[in-house]
Amino acid sequence: MFLNFRVTATDPTSKGRRGSFVTPHGVIETPVFMPVGTQGTVKTLGPDDVTRLGFGLALANTYHLYLRPGHETIRDLGGLHRFMGFDGALLTDSGGYQVFSLKDLRKITEEGVAFASHLDGSRHLLTPEGSIGIQEALGADIIMAFDEPVAPEMNIAYAKEASDRSTRWAERCLAARTRHADQALFGITQGGFDAELRRQSAQEITSLGFDGYAIGGLSVGESREVMGAMIDASEPFLPVDRPRYLMGVGTPDDLVRCVARGVDMFDCVMPTRNARNGTLFTSEGKFSIKNARFATDPGPLDPACDCYTCATFSRAYLRHLFTANEILGLRLNTIHNLAFYRRRIEEIRAAITEGRLGAWAGELSHAS
Amino acid sequence: MFLNFRVTATDPTSKGRRGSFVTPHGVIETPVFMPVGTQGTVKTLGPDDVTRLGFGLALANTYHLYLRPGHETIRDLGGLHRFMGFDGALLTDSGGYQVFSLKDLRKITEEGVAFASHLDGSRHLLTPEGSIGIQEALGADIIMAFDEPVAPEMNIAYAKEASDRSTRWAERCLAARTRHADQALFGITQGGFDAELRRQSAQEITSLGFDGYAIGGLSVGESREVMGAMIDASEPFLPVDRPRYLMGVGTPDDLVRCVARGVDMFDCVMPTRNARNGTLFTSEGKFSIKNARFATDPGPLDPACDCYTCATFSRAYLRHLFTANEILGLRLNTIHNLAFYRRRIEEIRAAITEGRLGAWAGELSHAS
Repeated sequence: MFLNFRVTATDPTSKGRRGSFVTPHGVIETPVFMPVGTQGTVKTLGPDDVTRLGFGLALANTYHLYLRPGHETIRDLGGLHRFMGFDGALLTDSGGYQVFSLKDLRKITEEGVAFASHLDGSRHLLTPEGSIGIQEALGADIIMAFDEPVAPEMNIAYAKEASDRSTRWAERCLAARTRHADQALFGITQGGFDAELRRQSAQEITSLGFDGYAIGGLSVGESREVMGAMIDASEPFLPVDRPRYLMGVGTPDDLVRCVARGVDMFDCVMPTRNARNGTLFTSEGKFSIKNARFATDPGPLDPACDCYTCATFSRAYLRHLFTANEILGLRLNTIHNLAFYRRRIEEIRAAITEGRLGAWAGELSHAS
Repeated sequence: MFLNFRVTATDPTSKGRRGSFVTPHGVIETPVFMPVGTQGTVKTLGPDDVTRLGFGLALANTYHLYLRPGHETIRDLGGLHRFMGFDGALLTDSGGYQVFSLKDLRKITEEGVAFASHLDGSRHLLTPEGSIGIQEALGADIIMAFDEPVAPEMNIAYAKEASDRSTRWAERCLAARTRHADQALFGITQGGFDAELRRQSAQEITSLGFDGYAIGGLSVGESREVMGAMIDASEPFLPVDRPRYLMGVGTPDDLVRCVARGVDMFDCVMPTRNARNGTLFTSEGKFSIKNARFATDPGPLDPACDCYTCATFSRAYLRHLFTANEILGLRLNTIHNLAFYRRRIEEIRAAITEGRLGAWAGELSHAS
């Protein structure tokens, strides 16, 4: 599927750009942040909540859904959208990242990756063709090529080997896909922390002709400067007429800095996972709702926020819910953190339109 | 506060009756079921969900809120309604039931009950005056007298002693209350499993003049027949012009049988607790969503239900959420079970209007 990605505005002070693309489940404006619905739900939220929060595109994890409840079950139930009850657009990852994270439980060959399920130890083989097949059964609007993420600890020789294999796997993914009409397929550029490898990977993957391109293997513990340098090494080779997706990123300030470097799409568990840990993003900074100073605080979580949580409840109540282990607290925190991310994206879009993104990103880059 | 309780319809085939009473947070139609919001939230739900499900009256637990976050904190934050963000009416229990459940941690004197917190072991003394003071600080629309529930294992001599003490405590509660204008105070009749003690307690408590009357000490493991007999022993002495509240009851069928015996109000954790255990009430009976037969079931949880859960999701998805430990599953199950209870109450009201409640209750009493 051709997403018909169009750039609608560019920031003269950075590489930031606004755009939009078309999916069978709606038009997506970029820059865009995707909340993560690992197991077919953005944790603690219903699909109506996700929509109400303004997210028209969410991510789900192929690895988890393949193991449980199984992609064939989801396919037979009408696909992932219907299964989740979500009318918006969905993106599935390839399963590669999760499989490669099973360090002691997996074995890589040219064919694919053999691994043991983290749930029951059962043995599986994930191949490029298999990943595409699973993702076609799930039926997301955007699916991802199956590749080998280059882990930070790899030496450069291995990183080159993995990168070459990922290119061969990318070709197999393109050959395996069948749902051209209603699924976009993104390639993933890797290259570890080596600018030259980043360039090579970006050139090879983009030469294959995907509907969009991801930058993978970042946000794995490297410094802000290294992340920026690796984006800068990849970005010039990513075609301007395709969306660019920085996988697994990041903090609210990462969004500003990385859009300014030319990125269009993001996903990250940070807003949702932090919410469940009681860590909240606000216009007054990040803080933990567990803090005793909130015990009698009648004010809203974030005076600058208009989300349901901030409009309805006090910090004292939110702290009480968290302290008392009430599930509602996790939900209310999640609603707020996602509303914060959503607003951050809107602020970034406005900064692009008004030519201020470069200055904003610059301030953040120089901040401690 | 005088609730201005009015009986609006009676069932000629049973003691069932419909009515309504007025609170500062809305008119409540009876029979009514109150969902339980132990710690200031109906578990997994926001106040908007509770309202949307059609519940205009909910219960919160004095014992829990007294210990955490503290009644003075809640008072200073504007009272329990504002704390919870709930516009509907609230009822608080007296704390007695929870305190007496702390079997090894409490000591009873004429003054009150000394107990150790289940949270941190700190020592507290709860008295009739103290309970009323706490409940006035919380600010519910209906508050309950502090009494000693007669536990099933008590001998009749002790039950008599406890019953007499509860009557003296009831007088102290009436003397202690100050918020006559905006809080109704209910007395609680006890009497264990002895019909004569039930009668005595009901006569003594009702002679004191409360705004409503509860039947306490039931639904603690006794048979359906014993519960019915104890209601029948109390009910003739409860004035017809005051609401009658059967505490801690019960199953959906209990609601039918007990309304037919003259009860107007109920509360129970069953719909919400069962939901979190995966046990669901449906028009096809009660079942566990964990059952493997639901793994690929595309149908709604309950074809006869129009709640958000049933309108949006399949049994297969609900089973997946439960199996994958997703919090959303607990929420969706809770929404459904409360919708089932809400509909059950509506069906009971219709049966009263149509003169069918006696027959319905009779069928249930003869069912296995």
